[in-house]
Amino acid sequence: MPQKKIFIQEVGIRDGIQGEPALVPTERKIKWAAELLDSGLDVIQLGSFVKADKVPQMADTEELFRHFSALPGKEKFSALVLNMKGLERGLKCGVGTFCMGSSASETHSRENAGMGVDEAAGHIAEVAREALKAGKKVQALVQSAFGCGYEGPVPAEKVLTIVKKYLEAGVRNIGLADTAGHAHPLQVRELFGAVAELDPAAELSCHFHNAYALGLANCCYALEAGVTYFESSLGGLGGCPFTKLPSGNVCTEDLVHTFQRMGLRKDIKLETLIAVARDAAAFFNRELPGSVMKSGSIVDFKGTL
Amino acid sequence: MPQKKIFIQEVGIRDGIQGEPALVPTERKIKWAAELLDSGLDVIQLGSFVKADKVPQMADTEELFRHFSALPGKEKFSALVLNMKGLERGLKCGVGTFCMGSSASETHSRENAGMGVDEAAGHIAEVAREALKAGKKVQALVQSAFGCGYEGPVPAEKVLTIVKKYLEAGVRNIGLADTAGHAHPLQVRELFGAVAELDPAAELSCHFHNAYALGLANCCYALEAGVTYFESSLGGLGGCPFTKLPSGNVCTEDLVHTFQRMGLRKDIKLETLIAVARDAAAFFNRELPGSVMKSGSIVDFKGTL
Repeated sequence: MPQKKIFIQEVGIRDGIQGEPALVPTERKIKWAAELLDSGLDVIQLGSFVKADKVPQMADTEELFRHFSALPGKEKFSALVLNMKGLERGLKCGVGTFCMGSSASETHSRENAGMGVDEAAGHIAEVAREALKAGKKVQALVQSAFGCGYEGPVPAEKVLTIVKKYLEAGVRNIGLADTAGHAHPLQVRELFGAVAELDPAAELSCHFHNAYALGLANCCYALEAGVTYFESSLGGLGGCPFTKLPSGNVCTEDLVHTFQRMGLRKDIKLETLIAVARDAAAFFNRELPGSVMKSGSIVDFKGTL
Repeated sequence: MPQKKIFIQEVGIRDGIQGEPALVPTERKIKWAAELLDSGLDVIQLGSFVKADKVPQMADTEELFRHFSALPGKEKFSALVLNMKGLERGLKCGVGTFCMGSSASETHSRENAGMGVDEAAGHIAEVAREALKAGKKVQALVQSAFGCGYEGPVPAEKVLTIVKKYLEAGVRNIGLADTAGHAHPLQVRELFGAVAELDPAAELSCHFHNAYALGLANCCYALEAGVTYFESSLGGLGGCPFTKLPSGNVCTEDLVHTFQRMGLRKDIKLETLIAVARDAAAFFNRELPGSVMKSGSIVDFKGTL
């Protein structure tokens, strides 16, 4: 069991909904983000700086940051940026943490970023340098780190080569993202172990998807492999629209419930998370993948007798 | 990683469907069981010997055993028995393996078996002795071993007391069943570790439910804790109707897919399992919880380029 504190970044308002055809009104996003902040989650990702015509769901990202930049807790909001242009937009509207990444799969990299693996990683390293120069927190992820829906297995060396570029750029929060959901627990233990060897002091992040039902199992193995920074999505919403088989992110309430059952992060208000997930299910008018939003919490359950 | 061979018992035709109001015709059960046998799964649980008016879905259990007792592979079918009467019925129709269990929760024990914990465990130990005398294989499970939907936490000592009774009766396959889905990975590691200390040579079984999304994670931790015998249900069907919050069993295709991704049990025909799960979804006319039946297998996926 880890001695270090663990952190959770909520990505539902970005990764969770970016592929949803029903546009979430800005007011609803503000409501969800405020409640998620109030729950005690550590970082709330509010959106990404992409072209509005490409991902209409993200068109109000600047507006969201302007709203929260006047309120307490403003440093707890993050954004995904894809390039220098996105970084510039984010610096102008008060983003606290910049998340970025490049793919270890050539095909996914070209589909997602329009560049090959090496070029994309070098580009992201440059964006990271600029964000760090501006005094911002930076998280850099390797996407498709555990396999690719187009290419299949992704060699660990390709992942580690990208990680080295991020470390050389000065990034301290290094993540592995399982964009296609291919990761399995033993692979998680091995690959995070190899990343930790490159820099034992780096903060390690994980981002798992559920295409093959292993998201939570992979989080548990990541926890024991030294990962301290977990990404998840309210209700289990999500899936990259530019990968081959989109599937939901690890569900925030289920992840927090698991951690709390293990005695970790009992400060987070799980009931608040469940309420947001249920509101999202009501908004999208369908059942979401999360379990605890249906079962209810048993964290401090002492029986009903 | 375990050096010993791992086994999988399919419980879909019993635990999976026993709470389903739509009665599965005997012919359909025979079709599913024959295909599951052909897939290479080790044991197929065909039904249980309960009163037909209490669980109508199990009314044709004898007929199923009579059908398969004339065919190759007949030793691979198991049944759940609750008492001596059930054992007698099973001995008459050619059951190869007898599965049985008693609960570590007083309330669940009374709801499920009409007896308190001690009495029920003593009774099951007697049934086990008789089955062993008749030369049959026996698996004995402790139900609600990780927590109870009525009572909350279940002390480990209560579980271990029951395990000792089973061991004294000569049972070699000892299981822990997470009837309410309360187990979490660290608890799985700890409790199976304690059971293994009682008898390091016992064969350990696990049976997990998904109420809090941890079924597969718990299986992975059980695997590393020395469990070699896994129970799962096609499509993720299931849930004990006499517990407080029924939820699906660990899904067979997802479990086999996970094992095969780790290099284990690649002899099992996953495509056959997926076909049965899809047929069950068609029969019940709804989406089942399984993931791989929707995503397809990536066990030997080399990419599509």
